[in-house]
Amino acid sequence: MTKSLRRPASDAVDRLLNPKSIAVVGSLREARFGGYVTASNLLRFGYRGKIYPVNPQYDAVLNLKVHPSVKDIPEPVDLVVTMAGAPAVPKIIADSVQNKAKVAIIISDGFGERNADGSRLQQEVDRIAETGGLRLLGPNTIGVANPAIGLITTPYRVTYDKMFTGGVALCAQTGMIGPQNLPLEETHYGLSKMCDFGNKCDLDEIDLLDYLANDPETKVIAMHLEVIRDGQLFLKKAKEVVAQKPVIVLKPGRTRESRKAMASHTGSLAGEDLIYDSAFKQAGVIRVDNLSELIGIPKVLATQPPPRGNRLAIVTISGGVGVMGIDVASTHGLTLAQFSRGTLERLAAVSPVLASNPVDLGPGLPAYQVPGGVASRFPAMIEAILDDENVDCLAMACPWGVRGKIPEVFGALVKRNTKTMAVWAAGPSLAISQEMNRDFEAIGLPTYPDGDTAIKALSVAVRYSRIKAGFTRIREPRA
Amino acid sequence: MTKSLRRPASDAVDRLLNPKSIAVVGSLREARFGGYVTASNLLRFGYRGKIYPVNPQYDAVLNLKVHPSVKDIPEPVDLVVTMAGAPAVPKIIADSVQNKAKVAIIISDGFGERNADGSRLQQEVDRIAETGGLRLLGPNTIGVANPAIGLITTPYRVTYDKMFTGGVALCAQTGMIGPQNLPLEETHYGLSKMCDFGNKCDLDEIDLLDYLANDPETKVIAMHLEVIRDGQLFLKKAKEVVAQKPVIVLKPGRTRESRKAMASHTGSLAGEDLIYDSAFKQAGVIRVDNLSELIGIPKVLATQPPPRGNRLAIVTISGGVGVMGIDVASTHGLTLAQFSRGTLERLAAVSPVLASNPVDLGPGLPAYQVPGGVASRFPAMIEAILDDENVDCLAMACPWGVRGKIPEVFGALVKRNTKTMAVWAAGPSLAISQEMNRDFEAIGLPTYPDGDTAIKALSVAVRYSRIKAGFTRIREPRA
Repeated sequence: MTKSLRRPASDAVDRLLNPKSIAVVGSLREARFGGYVTASNLLRFGYRGKIYPVNPQYDAVLNLKVHPSVKDIPEPVDLVVTMAGAPAVPKIIADSVQNKAKVAIIISDGFGERNADGSRLQQEVDRIAETGGLRLLGPNTIGVANPAIGLITTPYRVTYDKMFTGGVALCAQTGMIGPQNLPLEETHYGLSKMCDFGNKCDLDEIDLLDYLANDPETKVIAMHLEVIRDGQLFLKKAKEVVAQKPVIVLKPGRTRESRKAMASHTGSLAGEDLIYDSAFKQAGVIRVDNLSELIGIPKVLATQPPPRGNRLAIVTISGGVGVMGIDVASTHGLTLAQFSRGTLERLAAVSPVLASNPVDLGPGLPAYQVPGGVASRFPAMIEAILDDENVDCLAMACPWGVRGKIPEVFGALVKRNTKTMAVWAAGPSLAISQEMNRDFEAIGLPTYPDGDTAIKALSVAVRYSRIKAGFTRIREPRA
Repeated sequence: MTKSLRRPASDAVDRLLNPKSIAVVGSLREARFGGYVTASNLLRFGYRGKIYPVNPQYDAVLNLKVHPSVKDIPEPVDLVVTMAGAPAVPKIIADSVQNKAKVAIIISDGFGERNADGSRLQQEVDRIAETGGLRLLGPNTIGVANPAIGLITTPYRVTYDKMFTGGVALCAQTGMIGPQNLPLEETHYGLSKMCDFGNKCDLDEIDLLDYLANDPETKVIAMHLEVIRDGQLFLKKAKEVVAQKPVIVLKPGRTRESRKAMASHTGSLAGEDLIYDSAFKQAGVIRVDNLSELIGIPKVLATQPPPRGNRLAIVTISGGVGVMGIDVASTHGLTLAQFSRGTLERLAAVSPVLASNPVDLGPGLPAYQVPGGVASRFPAMIEAILDDENVDCLAMACPWGVRGKIPEVFGALVKRNTKTMAVWAAGPSLAISQEMNRDFEAIGLPTYPDGDTAIKALSVAVRYSRIKAGFTRIREPRA
């Protein structure tokens, strides 16, 4: 259902992600799903704009006045969020048009993704909105999030009540990428914006790409795309964006079987997969393989100085793990940095067994496991590595002796650091590793569940630096 | 340093892994590393054999009588564990020979992995032991573990005090695979035996392979091998073992750079990598890519009925994630099961939106998120899938509404189940997912951090079934 003529959407996307007022249409019963949950999520996450619950059966809920319909709200709202049953949606969209609302999120399912009747309903809703100048996200979406203003539209109960601001924009065609399914608070994930496209009857990946390219809070754009509505336009736009900030894409449908499943899931047919690899490559779009990578890899790009080369330093807690790290590095385009004589001397001054790359903490590990004890040695070691002109990036295993002292040990270092770092909080306790990960993320160091993943993330940062340099050279030959 | 003639080692390996008495030689100061830690680990993990701390400066420690040297212990011990400094080791090994000890673990580093002096020292120690009929593990190792008898020789403090018995034997050439570095208790990991080879001056992967092949508690053998001392013999033995139980190998050194690092790390040169892939394949050895896979994939082989085919059912909490699962499945040799009419009817009776493969819990998720509420529906849904003759294996996402009720909901089902299952406890809280994972593992269902990983593990189970069937056909053409 690609539109012949795209309507400019930047104002609508801005209202979608920075609304000053929101109408919430749906059940206001206290439950695990529905309008009550969305309204209470907004309050819990600290949204400061106006919230208008809409339901003919209530007068007030959560200390908010309830209006019987969107058209009864006394001012035009920026955003309508509806989770009413599909058959009720055309009327709600018509009411929203009458309210002069800017944009509506249709959370409800049972549209194009369900069956032919649903497709017809979706077309009807789309027609009402287009005629009335209202833009739509969805249907079949959990909507958007913007931590900076406490915006969260998911109709599902969320087990936490804080999202952290940061440089990663996550867009997806699945509710899996949503605050109700991701441990954003526990992992101190730095998010600029989040958007679930749903069935894309109107707003789509190109509208978000346009907006996020110009969003100063967004440093990296990560998108899960089952269907790309206008492939050529997407690639053209992406290539422009990539000259400024990285675009990471997870594009499922590598096999015939999964493409068939996508058709039934989103109501759209996807193209052959083979063309995507080369098209993404030409556009400088970095393709990742799975959800973990889509969520994890952008962190290093959002928080770290860009690598100036591919020379990797490794700090490991075991020689064997160091070797595995080199395998990952050299199969992903990184090379092991040759430490300068000065660096080797500075490392040897900390401990003679440390004077090599990978730097193996293993033999001296007992000393590093003492809580606090490591605080006196770790900075000198890491600084020696980061100061080396032969080092472009550092994958650092951090033993759990540093637990509780991460801001103190690494805070100042991070502020003046100009190299690309990724961290693995190593240890025999998931709880301790998670606590350390949170502390590292809070001071701006991206964390990964193991050394291999940290190195793979660094390799993507190196790859992006090359892509960007290539694009810039083409554009500015004399710069 | 391959020996020209291998000495039979099964008795020694049995004493190594099932010692009735252990001498612990090293510092008895209360610290984070040393003999005191090993002795107290043994006591904390419930080892019931005799423990003889050895140190000339103490009379008693931890309520155990301390002997001045191993030769003063009044009975021949099964196992000597020494972490004394490298120069002291030849004397300790000579004392152990005099004690008529069966086997010694040399935890100490500073041998072949360090420099030429260390290599000479290692040769000296090896000569003393061989002449005296004493077998050695190490040097430069954290030793072994056997949860069934509370055996744990690591000299590092361990943050927990329980290991769970199970079918996976983990062997490695790195202390990273050791109780002090892995969250074995938190993840309810089912371990039969654990062994860190260290520098392999005597006992090596072939000795362990021989032993574990005949160990009834071991269902899967997983080995990290930087160096294979006798490649041809290893492959010959492995091929024999694979007809009975799976052998999973992580062999680093895929690139020239990592092979160079291995040489300095273990003091041995590794061969070119290319030959390993085909050699492993011929022997039916399954090669994995990283530590996470080495630790995680064996779980499905150790706990689940072997798959009789490659037809996969997927239970997902999001249609988009289901599509990604199909991508993983079809690129790893699995195919999406076609549910029978009867199964579709049974699923539709639970909820009409569930009647397809992947089974998408998404649209009805709120109902499944209610703690306890799902208990009434989940078994009927899973049973319908597992009963289907067109289904060989099931990757199951489990929403966290089942939290706290896992034995009740799945316990009976697991007992009579004949299909291969792998589970992903999906949810927005790491803590809740971990709690659910423990509960699943406790009833014998292997868990994975996401759907993709669960499906990849199932694909390895399918691959092993094919390997085993092929090997059995070759051996028993008329069976």
